[in-house]
Amino acid sequence: MIKIAVDAMGGDFAPKEQIEGVYLALDRFDDIEITLFGEKKLMQPFLKADHPRLTFVETEGVIAMGEKDPIGAIRSNRKSSMAMALKSVKDASHDAVVSSGATQALIAGAHMIIGRMKGIKRTAIAPVLPTVVKDKPFILLDAGGNVEIKPEFMVQQAYFATVYAKEILGDAKPQVGLLNIGAEEGKGRLLDHEAAAALKAHPAIDFYGNVEPKDILNPPTTILLSDGFTANIVMKTIEGSARGFGIMLKEELAQGIFGKLGLLLSIKNLKSFKKRLSPEEIGGAMIYGLDGVLVKAQGSSKANGFYNGIRQARKIVHQDVLGKVRKILEASSDDSA
Amino acid sequence: MIKIAVDAMGGDFAPKEQIEGVYLALDRFDDIEITLFGEKKLMQPFLKADHPRLTFVETEGVIAMGEKDPIGAIRSNRKSSMAMALKSVKDASHDAVVSSGATQALIAGAHMIIGRMKGIKRTAIAPVLPTVVKDKPFILLDAGGNVEIKPEFMVQQAYFATVYAKEILGDAKPQVGLLNIGAEEGKGRLLDHEAAAALKAHPAIDFYGNVEPKDILNPPTTILLSDGFTANIVMKTIEGSARGFGIMLKEELAQGIFGKLGLLLSIKNLKSFKKRLSPEEIGGAMIYGLDGVLVKAQGSSKANGFYNGIRQARKIVHQDVLGKVRKILEASSDDSA
Repeated sequence: MIKIAVDAMGGDFAPKEQIEGVYLALDRFDDIEITLFGEKKLMQPFLKADHPRLTFVETEGVIAMGEKDPIGAIRSNRKSSMAMALKSVKDASHDAVVSSGATQALIAGAHMIIGRMKGIKRTAIAPVLPTVVKDKPFILLDAGGNVEIKPEFMVQQAYFATVYAKEILGDAKPQVGLLNIGAEEGKGRLLDHEAAAALKAHPAIDFYGNVEPKDILNPPTTILLSDGFTANIVMKTIEGSARGFGIMLKEELAQGIFGKLGLLLSIKNLKSFKKRLSPEEIGGAMIYGLDGVLVKAQGSSKANGFYNGIRQARKIVHQDVLGKVRKILEASSDDSA
Repeated sequence: MIKIAVDAMGGDFAPKEQIEGVYLALDRFDDIEITLFGEKKLMQPFLKADHPRLTFVETEGVIAMGEKDPIGAIRSNRKSSMAMALKSVKDASHDAVVSSGATQALIAGAHMIIGRMKGIKRTAIAPVLPTVVKDKPFILLDAGGNVEIKPEFMVQQAYFATVYAKEILGDAKPQVGLLNIGAEEGKGRLLDHEAAAALKAHPAIDFYGNVEPKDILNPPTTILLSDGFTANIVMKTIEGSARGFGIMLKEELAQGIFGKLGLLLSIKNLKSFKKRLSPEEIGGAMIYGLDGVLVKAQGSSKANGFYNGIRQARKIVHQDVLGKVRKILEASSDDSA
């Protein structure tokens, strides 16, 4: 059995959507057990009859989504659903934790409570995003963990992502691309030159070279890497473009009588288009580099998005992603450095 | 009369589309004179009857669009259409130059031949991009000029863009936003903190604060600023998202019989949607900081896109953008620093 701890209280629509996502996961996988960390009286309205593989841990308080001081909040509220769920992975009573709570609090809490994997220099947030090719998503690193970064951190993220792409995304030979302003070698900042050299040199990484973001939704590699500032900017620019294009498309399609008729006929397909762009379809972002499995589902997750986060956490445990990363770490010279 | 020098030979579809764009501009504006810099024998097939406001300067050779060493090419070919057109602005026989030639060669050539405006520390490429609000575009800075940047360069770009937004885009009170990974003060890198402080302090700049790119096509400010690496990444991510969404949209819309019918009815509107996203509609990018007016039209410009570049150059001269920037420079302490 794979034991998954769920922070039921974090997220824009918690605990309703989280609990519904949990039931979806229990239905679809019979090799998981889930513990809901939360306040029973708030969860009660959404609970069904007792489930043999669902248990509860009562917690006190929640880290609010708009919390001004998320790091202070998680530090001072060790009985919160988030803190208690994280602790259940640290004390090894659970194999993985899934939360859609406030990102900064979650990352800070994970550092305080779970801690980094031995030899890993920095943790990283690794969302999985859709491309134009169905079921061929890509990993974007580092989407916000490390604003100022060193090439050695990027190398560790790259081989972590390589294991993830193989074991979870099913890419037998994942390559790593460096996000850059030009495809030619030597483009970009000093950081990019140093990172390219270090990525090329590492035996566990298949380095492709520079990738320009004009191919961002049709990238030549399953893994795209940059510093935490740039990758976060890229992720938010895709999001902003999607929003903007959606608004423009709706406006333009509704023009004229033929347009209105066409729009009516296209509604089902437009919904399917929107769904394809939705982060819900892919699931959450694994936090790389912790001494335990943590999946961060989107704060705005609905039941299906949260279910996908649980599905992902289950597979990460099942495929022993952490064990495989540890093997590379042991073989890497950067561990002894 | 406003005298505009046109590099007829640079661009993916030169000289045909450039020449057609020139005729469009001559038709629509009777206060401009245009000189075509190029090889007459190559231009001949696209020329109409003599035009009283169109003259020619014969040039030798062209800087190829895919040129491996663009800086070397412009340095060693001073009789090229690009070099000669730039020179005509330097020697004041023309008021502005428009080129859709290779960007790097053009920027290098502009530095060598026209030179920087006195007091300006760095030039910058400033494309004007569409938003979800029709006829309310925004300026993105610096889209590729300065990979490593200092806050003082960003300040100069910000007040240059402020003048441009007022005089060319018609925004009476343009504000400047700093592209960042969070909207709250204090987000981002050391560079961003320093830039925010410097932008806030300058009397000719109305600083709005941080802007996250999840609002990239619906930004709260007419001017969005970052370092040259980040802004270029943002521009290419918008481009890549547009491409990717276009592919996905086409695939999804064509599903099923109702979808196909809807698609047929929507074709005109989809074209209008595509046009709205097209950089052609906005025109070229002004190069800020030169001692002369240079507009870089897209390398892939067709006649209408190139016409828009000429229209833009005309307005920049007409509104005396450079004169207004010089006044701010003279009043700014950073000139004497």
